[in-house]
Amino acid sequence: MTPQLSPNTLEARTRLAALGARYHRAGWLMGTSGNLSARVVSEDVGDDRIVVSASGRDKGELGPEDFVELDLRGELLAAGDPGHGRRARPSAEASIHLALYRTRPTARVALHVHTVASTLALPDGEIATSPRSHTPDEHVFTGVQRLRFTGLELIKGWDLWEEGAIADLPYFPNWPHVPDIARDVERFYHHHPDDRVPALLIAHHGITAWGADFFSANRHLEVTEFLCQVSLARRALR
Amino acid sequence: MTPQLSPNTLEARTRLAALGARYHRAGWLMGTSGNLSARVVSEDVGDDRIVVSASGRDKGELGPEDFVELDLRGELLAAGDPGHGRRARPSAEASIHLALYRTRPTARVALHVHTVASTLALPDGEIATSPRSHTPDEHVFTGVQRLRFTGLELIKGWDLWEEGAIADLPYFPNWPHVPDIARDVERFYHHHPDDRVPALLIAHHGITAWGADFFSANRHLEVTEFLCQVSLARRALR
Amino acid sequence: MTPQLSPNTLEARTRLAALGARYHRAGWLMGTSGNLSARVVSEDVGDDRIVVSASGRDKGELGPEDFVELDLRGELLAAGDPGHGRRARPSAEASIHLALYRTRPTARVALHVHTVASTLALPDGEIATSPRSHTPDEHVFTGVQRLRFTGLELIKGWDLWEEGAIADLPYFPNWPHVPDIARDVERFYHHHPDDRVPALLIAHHGITAWGADFFSANRHLEVTEFLCQVSLARRALR
Amino acid sequence: MTPQLSPNTLEARTRLAALGARYHRAGWLMGTSGNLSARVVSEDVGDDRIVVSASGRDKGELGPEDFVELDLRGELLAAGDPGHGRRARPSAEASIHLALYRTRPTARVALHVHTVASTLALPDGEIATSPRSHTPDEHVFTGVQRLRFTGLELIKGWDLWEEGAIADLPYFPNWPHVPDIARDVERFYHHHPDDRVPALLIAHHGITAWGADFFSANRHLEVTEFLCQVSLARRALR
Repeated sequence: MTPQLSPNTLEARTRLAALGARYHRAGWLMGTSGNLSARVVSEDVGDDRIVVSASGRDKGELGPEDFVELDLRGELLAAGDPGHGRRARPSAEASIHLALYRTRPTARVALHVHTVASTLALPDGEIATSPRSHTPDEHVFTGVQRLRFTGLELIKGWDLWEEGAIADLPYFPNWPHVPDIARDVERFYHHHPDDRVPALLIAHHGITAWGADFFSANRHLEVTEFLCQVSLARRALR
Repeated sequence: MTPQLSPNTLEARTRLAALGARYHRAGWLMGTSGNLSARVVSEDVGDDRIVVSASGRDKGELGPEDFVELDLRGELLAAGDPGHGRRARPSAEASIHLALYRTRPTARVALHVHTVASTLALPDGEIATSPRSHTPDEHVFTGVQRLRFTGLELIKGWDLWEEGAIADLPYFPNWPHVPDIARDVERFYHHHPDDRVPALLIAHHGITAWGADFFSANRHLEVTEFLCQVSLARRALR
Repeated sequence: MTPQLSPNTLEARTRLAALGARYHRAGWLMGTSGNLSARVVSEDVGDDRIVVSASGRDKGELGPEDFVELDLRGELLAAGDPGHGRRARPSAEASIHLALYRTRPTARVALHVHTVASTLALPDGEIATSPRSHTPDEHVFTGVQRLRFTGLELIKGWDLWEEGAIADLPYFPNWPHVPDIARDVERFYHHHPDDRVPALLIAHHGITAWGADFFSANRHLEVTEFLCQVSLARRALR
Repeated sequence: MTPQLSPNTLEARTRLAALGARYHRAGWLMGTSGNLSARVVSEDVGDDRIVVSASGRDKGELGPEDFVELDLRGELLAAGDPGHGRRARPSAEASIHLALYRTRPTARVALHVHTVASTLALPDGEIATSPRSHTPDEHVFTGVQRLRFTGLELIKGWDLWEEGAIADLPYFPNWPHVPDIARDVERFYHHHPDDRVPALLIAHHGITAWGADFFSANRHLEVTEFLCQVSLARRALR
């Protein structure tokens, strides 16, 4: 029943499932939320493909069959074994992962989680979430907003090692139509190819972090959540 | 000693016990509190029955014998193996589960937990808890109170996907006589058959969430707890 | 090497070690703090004895050898296998456990943990901790202080089921000489034999809870910690 | 491939890896941060050597090969099996561990973790972190700052048992060039050989604790984190 998976994609599914279990235990993937993906070269077919968790699965109990494979434009290449009587399809949020793989050439793993700290890292109302305020292309990022971190040791975990480093974490409006978020993300990194922070926030929604391998992507995600916790606790102390 | 359990009820007991262990680890079922139930069709007898955790058990260590079975009116059908020298009997809170199964026809699993965030999601004194303020039937729900959530991504986990969704989580007074709570719940959903939020709060008490299967009920519960945590943290920031 | 343990004391040691691992995972027994005990009838000797965790052990990794046995006056009856090159001796806090067993006749298990919430459940300076303010015997409990809980569902977990129950959790000064705390505790329950709350706080120190068996003592402890968390979060919201 | 490890260093690597897994689960070693070390006598060579976790490893999944060995001056003695295509090298923070082993003669284990509570235990701006304020040698510790703890039971876990003990936890500026931190630490303990608190903070960075064995070092670390949590919660209550 299960389509034969090439070694690379099978490894990606297994590694992402293990990360899913780890993040669910930490309370970062409550209620089937979140998405995990990797960009791999299929040995069978020789193409570049994105392995991404299927929509609506319990991220604490992912198996290799709970993923789908897409090309870089988002076309479905192979569905995992549906199982459980549910058809495997990509989540709408896969579009955000694709936007990152298209504009961050070194990214091979992207991890998206929902945490209480990142949901609250921005004050209510600080970012417009109504589509009506969505300005035309040339203006969108005039006012791109960022959460600034400095003087905290953990910033080094984002690979920012220089003395007195200032790290500006970008955050994006949480458009109800998810591909609109993906479009913003793609546009932003297209215009800022040298941005060095390997993570972003979606306002009142969650964290996405990425890296060149499972190890760095996980490090970047843990650092981002830690910094959001620090940011939230500081606001509570004020 | 153990009465022969039909396959369906045995599966329900096993799945509910696993959820109990999971929630206890998260600190949501402290001090034997909480109740877990499922509505199953007994293959032996052909009837519809509610499998519900027995009163006073440690919810972190439930076994298949720690449940009782009721019909939809609450009559005891079969007691699990008492074991441990304790007689298995339904908790008073089973009446709330029954009220939900009678008025939410798609509900097949209902989960009730006690968490710090949901206990504090309502400001002290915001809801009357004295029986004296219990107004007659026709007035009870004139002023039914709700906690409003909007602009938060996790709302989608309640199956509210439309743009700009506003989710009103109802909360009920915590009458000392538990069947009074059940009566309020039953009356409310009887009069609001189209209410779409798959969860409710009991003031200064806890969360009840439900769904068409174990998977959705768990998702709805995790989403509700996440939103209560966000709500509480926001109050602390103000 | 290990002295032969009678079945009853061996079971008590095993059960207490399992509770210790559980509480350590929850962060309630950090830094070797805390003490766990049971009152058992030795089948060999026929006497009543207190099995209590030895001083200075990592409570997350207790084995049956990490306990000592005392009579009700505190005389050492049998030391566990010292092992690890450390002599097994009772903690000074064993005196508090003994005071409870002498004055709470139904108590068979007593559990003492240190948690952040219970350390902060009392405002700084609300209770005098200097020995100089230690008034003579007849006056000590004129002003005994209590933390009041009402209107919270979890109070039922203390076996207070009546409508509108008011639960007053007593708290004691944290005298530097631990037997002074034990003396206060013993005196208090000697004069209040009908007190129904199965737990107490020691100011800026931690929780002690007890019960007629492992099951109830654990329930009473979990309820007390939950209520302290609620109490602390409420203070933060004010 | 793996160089033959002498029994002592192998035990140290195994014990430190187990502590790493424990602290990672607690969220104290997010994003590959933190460092764990032990001072052992090599049976093969007879010298005194420091076994310390290699730079950039996921501290939740350390194996015996993820450590390097240094002499007390910091010279590399033996690298672990690199594996994973990564060269094993000491972290810059190893210099802080070495400074402690050189000035705290009874220290045999040193543990350095990053936690939210310790990052926030000091108010923002309370300690200068700019190198420009780094005064000359003779003045550095005129104004050494300390976080004072008193009246809290857990202080005993730092081996401060006397009545009314006052514990002053020193904290150091988080210089961007890590050896500068190490130099401050070494200088401080050189001038304060009788300081009794077995832990220190690095401002906006984390905790380092030490002890004569794995057991005490772990106790001192857990106590320090607990006290930072209490300190942070107190600030939130003010």
